[in-house]
Amino acid sequence: MTNYHKLEAKVVQELKDIANKIRIHSITSTQAAKSGTHPAIGLSFPKGHACPALYAAWAEAGLFPVADLQNLRKVDSDLEGHPTPRLNFIDVGTGSLGQGLAIAGGMAYVGKNYDKANYRVYCLVGDGESAEGSIWESVHFASHYKLDNLCMIFDINRLGQSEETSLGHDLENYRRRLEAFGAQTIVVDGHDIEELVKALHTAANTTGKPTAIVAKTLKGKNFPKIENMDNWHGKPLGDQSDRLISPISKLSSPPSYKLGESIATRQAYGTGLVKIAQSNPRVIALDGDMKNSTFSEKLKKFDESRYIECFIAEQSLVGTAIGAACRDRTVPFVSTFACFLTRAFDQIRMGAISQTNVNFIGSHCGVSIGEDGPSQMGLEDIAMFRTIPGSTIFYPGDAVATERAVELAANTKCVTFTRINRPATAVIYPNNQTFSVGKAIVVKKSDKDQVVLIGGGVTLHEAISAANDLAKLGIGARVIDPFTVKPLDKETIVENIKAVGGRAVVVEDHYRRWSG
Amino acid sequence: MTNYHKLEAKVVQELKDIANKIRIHSITSTQAAKSGTHPAIGLSFPKGHACPALYAAWAEAGLFPVADLQNLRKVDSDLEGHPTPRLNFIDVGTGSLGQGLAIAGGMAYVGKNYDKANYRVYCLVGDGESAEGSIWESVHFASHYKLDNLCMIFDINRLGQSEETSLGHDLENYRRRLEAFGAQTIVVDGHDIEELVKALHTAANTTGKPTAIVAKTLKGKNFPKIENMDNWHGKPLGDQSDRLISPISKLSSPPSYKLGESIATRQAYGTGLVKIAQSNPRVIALDGDMKNSTFSEKLKKFDESRYIECFIAEQSLVGTAIGAACRDRTVPFVSTFACFLTRAFDQIRMGAISQTNVNFIGSHCGVSIGEDGPSQMGLEDIAMFRTIPGSTIFYPGDAVATERAVELAANTKCVTFTRINRPATAVIYPNNQTFSVGKAIVVKKSDKDQVVLIGGGVTLHEAISAANDLAKLGIGARVIDPFTVKPLDKETIVENIKAVGGRAVVVEDHYRRWSG
Repeated sequence: MTNYHKLEAKVVQELKDIANKIRIHSITSTQAAKSGTHPAIGLSFPKGHACPALYAAWAEAGLFPVADLQNLRKVDSDLEGHPTPRLNFIDVGTGSLGQGLAIAGGMAYVGKNYDKANYRVYCLVGDGESAEGSIWESVHFASHYKLDNLCMIFDINRLGQSEETSLGHDLENYRRRLEAFGAQTIVVDGHDIEELVKALHTAANTTGKPTAIVAKTLKGKNFPKIENMDNWHGKPLGDQSDRLISPISKLSSPPSYKLGESIATRQAYGTGLVKIAQSNPRVIALDGDMKNSTFSEKLKKFDESRYIECFIAEQSLVGTAIGAACRDRTVPFVSTFACFLTRAFDQIRMGAISQTNVNFIGSHCGVSIGEDGPSQMGLEDIAMFRTIPGSTIFYPGDAVATERAVELAANTKCVTFTRINRPATAVIYPNNQTFSVGKAIVVKKSDKDQVVLIGGGVTLHEAISAANDLAKLGIGARVIDPFTVKPLDKETIVENIKAVGGRAVVVEDHYRRWSG
Repeated sequence: MTNYHKLEAKVVQELKDIANKIRIHSITSTQAAKSGTHPAIGLSFPKGHACPALYAAWAEAGLFPVADLQNLRKVDSDLEGHPTPRLNFIDVGTGSLGQGLAIAGGMAYVGKNYDKANYRVYCLVGDGESAEGSIWESVHFASHYKLDNLCMIFDINRLGQSEETSLGHDLENYRRRLEAFGAQTIVVDGHDIEELVKALHTAANTTGKPTAIVAKTLKGKNFPKIENMDNWHGKPLGDQSDRLISPISKLSSPPSYKLGESIATRQAYGTGLVKIAQSNPRVIALDGDMKNSTFSEKLKKFDESRYIECFIAEQSLVGTAIGAACRDRTVPFVSTFACFLTRAFDQIRMGAISQTNVNFIGSHCGVSIGEDGPSQMGLEDIAMFRTIPGSTIFYPGDAVATERAVELAANTKCVTFTRINRPATAVIYPNNQTFSVGKAIVVKKSDKDQVVLIGGGVTLHEAISAANDLAKLGIGARVIDPFTVKPLDKETIVENIKAVGGRAVVVEDHYRRWSG
């Protein structure tokens, strides 16, 4: 890095001109959209798309080596040296406040630890959204993992949507909080180009901790008051030409169990995870201090570098994974108790809008966890993930099915969710059984069947047990394992129900569907 | 308050004996349950049920006036002077980590501002769960509203579930963070009864800010290592004998609109809210900096004291409401954009386990918000609230229906959700129309109808418009407004579909149901 030297008046003027162009652009573009990206933001500060553009301008002004700019382009693919801002380099939508910093943290973690590249990640945080606890989860994450390649810029413009923010322009209060959470903190006048450039230079030359620039700004300075705070929107992936081509994730060896052997699907998850990690070095796992229950710790034991502990901060956990998944740099598996994923529903929803490829694993689902009590039971997880556009939901019935679900999930686009159980259950599938997304398996069948029993996970075993009991009474019962709840193999299910005369029992370990 | 004076050796010994009894109790009770409440917690520190018991003991030791103890009983109803802990005084379950402090904050806010009582609220926070952003939302809430009647006790035992917490025993780090977030902070040895009592005395004599006691403890000291961190469970309301009897919430005057008048249901929400607030002084509103969009600001304008601004921190928003609703001390209405309620799904889920009576209002639902973009659209809100056991979902079609939905919600037990729209739509119901939970309304009907059109909110208006277009083609279309989506009036719907020969079109403004 070069030492900081005072900018020439000409360069300062150029940067000011760029900032003004951005202001004009933010007015014209929001006018054209009639809503959306907020003009006041542009007026107060170079937010969102504006920030990398300025960075590029500074780079071209000789403040940073060209190599850095090259790396920057990998993240913001469309910045072909244009000082004029363009919108289609956005990897993830962060329109729901407080989510961007976790995603930036995931990107920075990958850059530092996996890509081992010297690109830097910049994240602009609004003061209103810094009231979200998720922001503080993320600052902690960044300092805990010493993400010195992350620069957070807090835009303290004082105004929320409906009233002044609770901290107003109390910059020292922000400083105290950010320093307490482990960030190097620099307070600047956000309208002073020179101060900003100097702070960014300091950030780039700091090691061992992330930097937070707390910038005092005035929103809509000299413009009539604009009240709506909505800012930028979910923008699906733009130009994907420089995305890594992710290798196919394949189990390094087929499942290896004995029929009838008793093993929990959560254990098979850990085994399957390690097997795909062996075949694809981009497979990583993230967990929220549940790794010894979800068995994601198996990956940590196999390769510590590919496990990211996110502690008890599910919003940060999910956001980090979304950041890590950007441009297919990693194939992330996020595990915790199924019920705790509700903590990050908003992040999951937004991830789907950004077409993320994160794989979620929810353990301890349903009432089958028993003694742990209702607060720990996943009873709304299937309903939640079914609402996610493009999602795939696996509900494997045994260890063999679980390893294959993990393999399929790693190769399935968009959000996947795999539901795994706490208690041990019997292995019912041979090791060479094939599984496909959307393909149910008829587990038990005879010509004399009078009813179809449908179950997944633990309830599949209950259905088999019930069928055995019915057989003793001379009643044939057909058992179907849907394997994926979404998409559901309607064809197989309907065909078999028709074959037995229209009788079916579905056994779920979830809240019942309440509609009347 | 009395001045702090050094405890007699006899009193210290009594308190130590109580602490030991609690330790024994925590071993025997968890042994009996075979899981659940964690013995190690009891061994490390007087957690959960233990804490009020010790407080009572201190009160009886003369450290606090008897009046305080009386007030304490209102919150912890079962503490009839027993030093032995009992479990059934728990108002809310907080088994999902990081939620208890927001609830305690809601209780403290009500105590200070509505009950104007001098009872104090104590909340024990684990160090593992203090990684949750929701904890920092809550500390900020408590300091922002100067809740000096709230004492937070951070149990720093260093151990998470699967590994050491990220801050370990770095007590000064906790101190810096808590002080930065505005709490008076006292670091103590959590095993030293005298230090604890002195810190609690200081907390009780501090005005203008909450107090955080950071207690260093050793988990499972002298006992074999126990690994599971799960602690206490969702316990439904115990003895309810001292719950306030909430007056019926009634609109102070009937709806007053003109047929065909154009008005958004969110505006009618604000009007209905003020009307029930006029009849019931316990009605309050909470919002996350969206009050000028959801129109909860109408209540703020009517009576500022009954509006709680929670800023952009939805987890704190929902937790505070659950705390405020405890023992029917208030009838809270929580409003924000429908999509942002996903941020607090875990809190809502746990609130339902605690049988809370919080009313949620989600505005800006569906794609009808248009220009604001996908991140702001509530497209999974109905699916989410339908999973909540005992919930009621209102989807009013116009301003008249909205005022009645608000009135019904206030008088409906358990969680309610009312979905309101951004755009203005026509008033279609006369002011004297009656509405009931689970009762659909046939809006348009003739003997020649060939199809049933079903819509709610904005889509009801689209259905009416489609029916008018079909009428021009000579096709009769019946239009049904379900009014509540849960429970759904299946009877009316099925009866009418049969009457038109089995043809129906349902028009939703939500993600489609994805199942295949």
